[in-house]
Amino acid sequence: MEYPRITSRRNPLAKAAAALAGSARERRERRRFLCEGARLCRDAAESGIRLEACFFTAQAMEKYPEYLKAVLTRSKEAYEISQEVAQLLSATKTPQGVFCVCESPASRWENVTGLAPEGPCIVLEDIQDPGNLGTILRTAEALGRFQVFLLGNCCDPLSPKALRASMGAVFRLELSLESSPERLLALLHGRGYQTHGAVPRESARKVTEVDFSKGLHSIFIGNEGSGLRPGTAAGCGDCVTIPMRGRAESLNAAAAATVLIWELARGERSHGG
Amino acid sequence: MEYPRITSRRNPLAKAAAALAGSARERRERRRFLCEGARLCRDAAESGIRLEACFFTAQAMEKYPEYLKAVLTRSKEAYEISQEVAQLLSATKTPQGVFCVCESPASRWENVTGLAPEGPCIVLEDIQDPGNLGTILRTAEALGRFQVFLLGNCCDPLSPKALRASMGAVFRLELSLESSPERLLALLHGRGYQTHGAVPRESARKVTEVDFSKGLHSIFIGNEGSGLRPGTAAGCGDCVTIPMRGRAESLNAAAAATVLIWELARGERSHGG
Repeated sequence: MEYPRITSRRNPLAKAAAALAGSARERRERRRFLCEGARLCRDAAESGIRLEACFFTAQAMEKYPEYLKAVLTRSKEAYEISQEVAQLLSATKTPQGVFCVCESPASRWENVTGLAPEGPCIVLEDIQDPGNLGTILRTAEALGRFQVFLLGNCCDPLSPKALRASMGAVFRLELSLESSPERLLALLHGRGYQTHGAVPRESARKVTEVDFSKGLHSIFIGNEGSGLRPGTAAGCGDCVTIPMRGRAESLNAAAAATVLIWELARGERSHGG
Repeated sequence: MEYPRITSRRNPLAKAAAALAGSARERRERRRFLCEGARLCRDAAESGIRLEACFFTAQAMEKYPEYLKAVLTRSKEAYEISQEVAQLLSATKTPQGVFCVCESPASRWENVTGLAPEGPCIVLEDIQDPGNLGTILRTAEALGRFQVFLLGNCCDPLSPKALRASMGAVFRLELSLESSPERLLALLHGRGYQTHGAVPRESARKVTEVDFSKGLHSIFIGNEGSGLRPGTAAGCGDCVTIPMRGRAESLNAAAAATVLIWELARGERSHGG
């Protein structure tokens, strides 16, 4: 099959796709995002994300025929692109040469008040680094079945960096967006959830002392540098901390989240048996 | 106090310092490494690392006077450098402008057979990404008191990226280098250690089923892509795995290490009471 070719970086379709990679605002306003990489594009397609257009290089077609086949059968449009255009679209130095403009699933994430979560919840407040956000989402997907809330001003989970770090977890997770801590706390408390705010404070309750196997639990994890907002921490039922031997500041944000998610997952497992 | 100034990127001292940042071989042969950042240089100084020479910009002296004071009192030599030279020495786009040429502690790490570890051990085999290695060392320092072995062909923990990710943990940890899995397994078994090889295999023993609170334990963690070498996994007393709900491949190397180190630390805590 022959595909239309795009060889110029000034091609309007290429420029519009590149703009999605570069700007969260562009993604929000056009309700689209750019997915890069053979595996990630295939994951998007198989997770029910709608593919508007696929862009691929001739080299990528030789190297990733299986992945590309899965993508091309689901994409409304498809274009063969030059290496030069691949460089324009790519966030990496050596692009694989596979890209998709996808419909954003973010509108599904917005109806928080209609949510009726029944399992453990992870709340991420003001996470700023896309690599951290993606890694935490990836860990959440691996370790359990969680409802994940992005609270306050988190970075965009659909940015190229966050997508890459999440390994596509963002397509498969139950994700929700909520700007107001008060509203989210009220929702969770209203549904019978215990709310635990994670803080790096030795005097807080040790996370190992919480019995996650009984009842409904949610853990609130804050910004990399400044932690939870004071109001959010104060609104949680209790504050929990990771007991440490070394210096408290020596656990990075993603590692701290991993420990907390793991502890929550432990409880979930003994729930389910 | 006045310090000699270096303003040219061709200055031999500046070039020699930059070479340490760029090459593991250079670090090995000259038994020196380059430490970057106000906090990290201070941490090195306070951890008993010998500082051969400090390089700092005038701007850094204004911005980090306390950190620099701690560094300068312990450094044999010190030079004020231009922004241009700071760029040459730096691994980042916007350098803080503080650098130290330090004596490598690696010779202390080499006498493995003389070791008599008594607490939990973490063995990292063939870890290739300096960011992962640094992060894992940082997590190990935060969560417990571990003897850490770098086994086989790990990347250099004294590279700029590994140092930065470790937040100086590499200066404070009990670290050992060993090239031979057989030798390390024999050492640990000889000292009464249980040896657990971490594998991403559902059929392996769940790490949650190991009672780390009794006896001496070591966990072997393998390469990011290919895991433990088959011979190493086979030589371990048992193989353990992290129980997952999601796809096994969706936990990244640093997150998997965090869970394993956390479980080991849990046991250590109940040991000590």
